[in-house]
Amino acid sequence: MIRISFDEIKCTVKRILEMRKVDADDAEILSGIIANNSLDGVYTHGINRFPRIVSNLESGVIDASVEVTLTSAAGSMECWDGHYGIGAINAFKCMRRAIELASQYGIGLVALRHNNHWLRGGTYGLQAAENGFVGICWSNTMPNMPVWGGKKPNIGNNPLIISVPRSDGRHFVFDSALSQFSYGKLEECRLKGVQLPFYGGFDNNDELTTDPAVIEKNGRLLPIGYWKGSGLSIALDLVATILSDGNSVTEVGRLGNEKGLTQVMIVIDPCRLNSKEHIDHITATILDDIDESDSGVHYPGERMWQTRRENEELGIPIIESVWNEVLGFL
Amino acid sequence: MIRISFDEIKCTVKRILEMRKVDADDAEILSGIIANNSLDGVYTHGINRFPRIVSNLESGVIDASVEVTLTSAAGSMECWDGHYGIGAINAFKCMRRAIELASQYGIGLVALRHNNHWLRGGTYGLQAAENGFVGICWSNTMPNMPVWGGKKPNIGNNPLIISVPRSDGRHFVFDSALSQFSYGKLEECRLKGVQLPFYGGFDNNDELTTDPAVIEKNGRLLPIGYWKGSGLSIALDLVATILSDGNSVTEVGRLGNEKGLTQVMIVIDPCRLNSKEHIDHITATILDDIDESDSGVHYPGERMWQTRRENEELGIPIIESVWNEVLGFL
Repeated sequence: MIRISFDEIKCTVKRILEMRKVDADDAEILSGIIANNSLDGVYTHGINRFPRIVSNLESGVIDASVEVTLTSAAGSMECWDGHYGIGAINAFKCMRRAIELASQYGIGLVALRHNNHWLRGGTYGLQAAENGFVGICWSNTMPNMPVWGGKKPNIGNNPLIISVPRSDGRHFVFDSALSQFSYGKLEECRLKGVQLPFYGGFDNNDELTTDPAVIEKNGRLLPIGYWKGSGLSIALDLVATILSDGNSVTEVGRLGNEKGLTQVMIVIDPCRLNSKEHIDHITATILDDIDESDSGVHYPGERMWQTRRENEELGIPIIESVWNEVLGFL
Repeated sequence: MIRISFDEIKCTVKRILEMRKVDADDAEILSGIIANNSLDGVYTHGINRFPRIVSNLESGVIDASVEVTLTSAAGSMECWDGHYGIGAINAFKCMRRAIELASQYGIGLVALRHNNHWLRGGTYGLQAAENGFVGICWSNTMPNMPVWGGKKPNIGNNPLIISVPRSDGRHFVFDSALSQFSYGKLEECRLKGVQLPFYGGFDNNDELTTDPAVIEKNGRLLPIGYWKGSGLSIALDLVATILSDGNSVTEVGRLGNEKGLTQVMIVIDPCRLNSKEHIDHITATILDDIDESDSGVHYPGERMWQTRRENEELGIPIIESVWNEVLGFL
């Protein structure tokens, strides 16, 4: 493990993208997203993922030349089409547009269809919060867990993000997929040879299990809250698909490679109803009340700020072979 | 158990409310909500709950004379104050207003503060769907489960509702509290002498347990998805409180009696982006895909429609002593 500064990562990524014909503005957006994800400790969706993006650009799976376009507009709502371009760039631009709509109307919504993977959902929650807005957004995914009562993966673990801005910059960011554990976590536990800390799915005898290898293989991941997360997953897929006329989870599954996803960004300007100072006070009070009542308790996003501070000071930890692979793209 | 028709329940409830000085329009709204909740099989939030409402009206805990009022407005967002009036009537009126805002702007939001218990959250999801709109709404609650990592109940199981309209009237309604089980379910299992079907909380030795009596007593209910539902609960409380300047979960706890709740209604007009026919087609396809892949699988709201049809035909089942108590209010 080596440590590289945020700036060096961002500049390196940006140069590599520009060398692959990504527009300078787009390269600025994507390099910022990737460097920030690693800065915040979400390494799986930061620099570790970058080699796969480069390979997708080189093979043509992702087309860097397309632009996200407006397909319909109605007051404070708009629908955009990502044309299977670079997912994180399209999502960033749509969140930017949703923020503009919220600035104008108080609340705004952008539905985005035919997009590719947006990397880390929290990016767009943070984007809203950094501009002083509340963000509520979600994406569908490929079918990766069974509906409650089913045995084959046919619903998505559709990540849901809710963010609340704070003036000191330590924004509240809830960012959670609807499966109890991700496939990444299953793999991690299997490689370490440990059981999951809680039930993560069903085994082949329909019994709940903590064995990561079994669940990885049969795909019978548990939704959060069993039937509850299953219903929420369907709800998010439905709303995203009817608003955008995009691909549902089932259709994403048919397309393969988890491409052509559907996303929704809802943005709210809380300062239209309340002063910034008062909102800060309410937020601090709620989070302090929760913190103080028990020790060792964290609010969503809290640990991220600790990691960010540490990585800003010491540099971002990167596996040396990954960094060498990235440098090889130059 | 006896069966009483929807109309008889509604008329009886309405008369009793009017006798207690509830305005005729308000009595019409509330009697409809109560009768519909029982019709849909949500008996705990229907006629079974009515005696408690009457007693609260008579004791002055709920003031029937107050009107919900607008406190601030900004484009497609508004904040209303319920003045500790009848929760379900205030929530119904605010959802009606949010629907008007969505009709005008595409998406609309109403934040409602100082309201009392709205009974069943699904009521407002259905209200949006019956008008052809997508509804996303939630309420906070009194502190009734511990934050993840904590031991004392200090966050709410804040119910979240997402509804999608269908032209045939069989709307999709996801309606779920964020605790794995409700206190009502714990009580039901304890009285029946059975264990919970899945872990429902922690025992006094910090071990997960299916024993309803232990969890009822120590209040250590599990959030759905453990840390995930805990984070989502905090997110919903935060957003509701900063938008409305209402009571947070902690403040509701200080007030006691689960009064002065804070609620949010977000309404989206999907027909501003897509035709009604196309939306129906997408919805049917998604729900059919999920249904067909496995047998015995239900989408949220599906079983409710079966119960509703049965109760429309045969009358609504009511415990005889409850019905006699209700008739005693006349």
